[in-house]
Amino acid sequence: MALDHNASGVFPIAVTPFLPDGSLDVKSVDSMTDFYLGAGATGLTILGIMGEAPKLEMSESLAITKQVVQRAGNVPVVVGVSAPGFAAMRQLARGAMELGAAGVMIAPPPALRTDDQITTYFAQAVEAIGDDIPWVLQDYPLTLTVVMTPKVIRTIMQNHASCVMLKHEDWPGLEKISTLRGFQKDGSMKPISILCGNGGLFLDFETERGADGAMTGYAFPDMLVELVDLARQGIRDEAHDLFDAHLPLLRYEQQQGIGLAVRKYVLQKRGAIASDAQRKPGGSLTAAAKAEVEYLLSRLAKRDARARA
Amino acid sequence: MALDHNASGVFPIAVTPFLPDGSLDVKSVDSMTDFYLGAGATGLTILGIMGEAPKLEMSESLAITKQVVQRAGNVPVVVGVSAPGFAAMRQLARGAMELGAAGVMIAPPPALRTDDQITTYFAQAVEAIGDDIPWVLQDYPLTLTVVMTPKVIRTIMQNHASCVMLKHEDWPGLEKISTLRGFQKDGSMKPISILCGNGGLFLDFETERGADGAMTGYAFPDMLVELVDLARQGIRDEAHDLFDAHLPLLRYEQQQGIGLAVRKYVLQKRGAIASDAQRKPGGSLTAAAKAEVEYLLSRLAKRDARARA
Amino acid sequence: MALDHNASGVFPIAVTPFLPDGSLDVKSVDSMTDFYLGAGATGLTILGIMGEAPKLEMSESLAITKQVVQRAGNVPVVVGVSAPGFAAMRQLARGAMELGAAGVMIAPPPALRTDDQITTYFAQAVEAIGDDIPWVLQDYPLTLTVVMTPKVIRTIMQNHASCVMLKHEDWPGLEKISTLRGFQKDGSMKPISILCGNGGLFLDFETERGADGAMTGYAFPDMLVELVDLARQGIRDEAHDLFDAHLPLLRYEQQQGIGLAVRKYVLQKRGAIASDAQRKPGGSLTAAAKAEVEYLLSRLAKRDARARA
Amino acid sequence: MALDHNASGVFPIAVTPFLPDGSLDVKSVDSMTDFYLGAGATGLTILGIMGEAPKLEMSESLAITKQVVQRAGNVPVVVGVSAPGFAAMRQLARGAMELGAAGVMIAPPPALRTDDQITTYFAQAVEAIGDDIPWVLQDYPLTLTVVMTPKVIRTIMQNHASCVMLKHEDWPGLEKISTLRGFQKDGSMKPISILCGNGGLFLDFETERGADGAMTGYAFPDMLVELVDLARQGIRDEAHDLFDAHLPLLRYEQQQGIGLAVRKYVLQKRGAIASDAQRKPGGSLTAAAKAEVEYLLSRLAKRDARARA
Repeated sequence: MALDHNASGVFPIAVTPFLPDGSLDVKSVDSMTDFYLGAGATGLTILGIMGEAPKLEMSESLAITKQVVQRAGNVPVVVGVSAPGFAAMRQLARGAMELGAAGVMIAPPPALRTDDQITTYFAQAVEAIGDDIPWVLQDYPLTLTVVMTPKVIRTIMQNHASCVMLKHEDWPGLEKISTLRGFQKDGSMKPISILCGNGGLFLDFETERGADGAMTGYAFPDMLVELVDLARQGIRDEAHDLFDAHLPLLRYEQQQGIGLAVRKYVLQKRGAIASDAQRKPGGSLTAAAKAEVEYLLSRLAKRDARARA
Repeated sequence: MALDHNASGVFPIAVTPFLPDGSLDVKSVDSMTDFYLGAGATGLTILGIMGEAPKLEMSESLAITKQVVQRAGNVPVVVGVSAPGFAAMRQLARGAMELGAAGVMIAPPPALRTDDQITTYFAQAVEAIGDDIPWVLQDYPLTLTVVMTPKVIRTIMQNHASCVMLKHEDWPGLEKISTLRGFQKDGSMKPISILCGNGGLFLDFETERGADGAMTGYAFPDMLVELVDLARQGIRDEAHDLFDAHLPLLRYEQQQGIGLAVRKYVLQKRGAIASDAQRKPGGSLTAAAKAEVEYLLSRLAKRDARARA
Repeated sequence: MALDHNASGVFPIAVTPFLPDGSLDVKSVDSMTDFYLGAGATGLTILGIMGEAPKLEMSESLAITKQVVQRAGNVPVVVGVSAPGFAAMRQLARGAMELGAAGVMIAPPPALRTDDQITTYFAQAVEAIGDDIPWVLQDYPLTLTVVMTPKVIRTIMQNHASCVMLKHEDWPGLEKISTLRGFQKDGSMKPISILCGNGGLFLDFETERGADGAMTGYAFPDMLVELVDLARQGIRDEAHDLFDAHLPLLRYEQQQGIGLAVRKYVLQKRGAIASDAQRKPGGSLTAAAKAEVEYLLSRLAKRDARARA
Repeated sequence: MALDHNASGVFPIAVTPFLPDGSLDVKSVDSMTDFYLGAGATGLTILGIMGEAPKLEMSESLAITKQVVQRAGNVPVVVGVSAPGFAAMRQLARGAMELGAAGVMIAPPPALRTDDQITTYFAQAVEAIGDDIPWVLQDYPLTLTVVMTPKVIRTIMQNHASCVMLKHEDWPGLEKISTLRGFQKDGSMKPISILCGNGGLFLDFETERGADGAMTGYAFPDMLVELVDLARQGIRDEAHDLFDAHLPLLRYEQQQGIGLAVRKYVLQKRGAIASDAQRKPGGSLTAAAKAEVEYLLSRLAKRDARARA
């Protein structure tokens, strides 16, 4: 069940559930997995940036992988393996695949600047983890400060048969999707899966530009699933109506830094996890912010019953 | 009519109108000014980052200032004077004030890092332009990469009587407004005006947190004016209904890089300027992007007649 | 034998020896340790940035620590524990101390900007590793892009009794040493040890400004030891004569990126390690660069017999 | 007398002389020009980063250009025209050429990241200033944070016949010179002039790698001239002896931030300028730093009589 370029739909970026004391909330790992699958997820991504991965010890990362993979059954699990060095990246990537992961995801380290530095880095990463592991290229300049042009992405895709998916979260990024799909049409790039991140802030148009779906952690993955389905069927106005109803909350959750606190708060309300605690150092919501989220949920509830949790 | 800390309402960030050949569109400077005033603007900000200021020669900057100030009559005009060196900053600041500007706006240069570097920079800037010119502190980390804590902003405000306003566009930034208003309440900071930027993406809550209004360039300044008024009167749900109707387009316009092309495109449609041309090097909209903007306008038009231009 | 603020002399930043196939060169770990001790080192720092630490798995890091600590006997060993997350930092720090390390060294992650972010980060780090572990604050803006003012360093030192040393490698940094020693004199900061890095490029004056010695990896640690001794005794001209003789090579080794290749090349020539191999991804010297190093060594050999290896 | 790819020797980066009150020191503009020419300079570069260019008004920049060009007679003068916008760049570039400048120098703005962004920027710059103006490409990643690979430099050189010289100050940068000269040999790049900056810290080897000389502002341009001549004649040991004698001071002057204060201090001592004042905001030397410079000069004077000023 290896990841390949046909992947589509919604791969939620899973949070990592913690108890208030900072220890891993093993029970919530199951309930969270069930929640995402119940929402219609076609895959799962764990240990991403929003999964508090750098706060975990290697043994914890592997334990979470094992548990999620087992619980997810036939649904493919992608494991974030970005690391400051290739030894740790290799260790986690090979360990995760042995435990049944479908693939891994790699982001470029922030110091990369030139096109050659970027393509070289991913060549070294593939050499480190082995070219038998399907992987997702993460393109996230807003947080990582690394800017990859469509041409550089094409070079990486052509250099590595094992790279099968782009996690697209450039910003702005609509033209990038069009350009990459153009590369496929003119035969200069192999087919790839494109799933979009960035909290879903442009998912309404990203699907129309040719994205295969979403890889992001918005607390209503069920909405994302519906949206991607509507877009696939070309039911445009309905797709936008749904999206627009969620946009005020989605935008609020997409804020850098406090977004994860919002996300965990809503996921807890929806029963996906037992606690919205983050392992230290973590953000938290002020009373004012909580009231704002509640207000947004109450407004959303008028149009989407799922917000009435 | 100098700018002071009582400023409130909406100060649109004005675009600079060009003809397709890149020359200044003098006629549109008037129509644009009229458009903003007609929308209910309580002030105007010219020569900001989104006003293509770095593409202008000094003589052009002064000519635009003169024309807008005269046309605006009693409405205060703030002039962006950020520059890589203090000689140019001083020249433009003093020139603009002589022409009748109400104040100037200064952003920190991207290289600043430490708290002391930031406060020192603004002390040098005030020494350069003179402490008799009212000025606006621009806090825009997303683009400028300079991070100012509330404490640093307070230090600057306390150091300089002539600093009367914060252009708030930190992101996320709601807590910053609350903290700064807290400083005023506990007496550790003088009263200041806070107008919010960032394309208005959080203006619905920023007003509730204590902002005095907006200083941003969204192509529907009339909506911003209404929103600020509703918020001031505490008509909460109606304010959010209005905001939410505009949010899909507002979010689209807020994209870094192509946002200005969207803004000028809509302003042209609305008759504010004759051409959406940017002086080189400028962005432009692809056919796909234009179609998306049109679609967003058509959806908006169902709720807001102003979008039926 | 815990590290304290009386530490002085030379703590070489040890390289990590690898065999040409990329595996750890266990035998050279001993010979390298012996080499540094034979050069007069008063301490040792392992797993630093120039020690290729991010390329190691946790188990390797602990194995190297164990071996060096045992071999070094009474000489204190400082272990670099900088990591993208506190879980890994804690694991290595506590593991290293259990194995007999004298202290650990922590660098700030590149994303930190404001004074408060910096002091908060180190408070979180101390909470993570425990306040019973003596630690060294690394101040290295050239590579890490984090700028700490003397006041921020003072705040960190005053906040944490367990912080006993500054690894000084600001650039330029002479005034910083003077300012920090001034803080001690005026009673606003506790006594701290200051050892200087940056390849030793300003060690001639750093010692005169009040530094206690060096913590850097120049391939002639015996020269650094002599220099620090001469400076301590106030034999100024002789100290500078020695330093100036080494400066052409020292400067060459201090180049970002290829410096480590130069260092390992010379250390291999001097018999400290069996191979100059770096674990992937690593730099290497071109034929032209090797010839330049040889030429510099031959020139140095006229004044310092140790270069005749 | 337009600049072309045959340029070689030493083009000092001229300081801009100010009086203690911050006004331009018109008299010293002449004495400084005479000093550089007397030192054997084959060209002059004015209004560079170390020439405090951003602190000047446009009219001052043009006045300095006029004066230096007239005084320099047949010696070509290169004018730094880097600016945040193309309007100011064009204005200064065309103005300077009309006044008799031999060419201009352009540095990339710090925000550029990808290879395409860099080549596009310079295409826009050439379009702005006109393709009839010979220009120097400045490659200075340490300060500008823009990283240009040799391939990108080649693309720029091939795209623009008017680009005739590289100001090389990558760090480390020796291999870059070798690679670029290799491009010329294999016919993939036209011949270009390469003059090296970075304070001269690697000029001893840069000349051996194929550089045509230096473009830097070390306060002993006469030494740089001698060094380049010795290198050209292949008198290697003597070249290095001369360089090594100056290296302790040269390194001291090369410090970021305070380097200009050191440079102006020594230039004043040598009679090139009347005052070492910098226009605000400027750095200055502490008493300790001045004493260090004096000590370095006294040590240098033993080997080079010019230091006995």
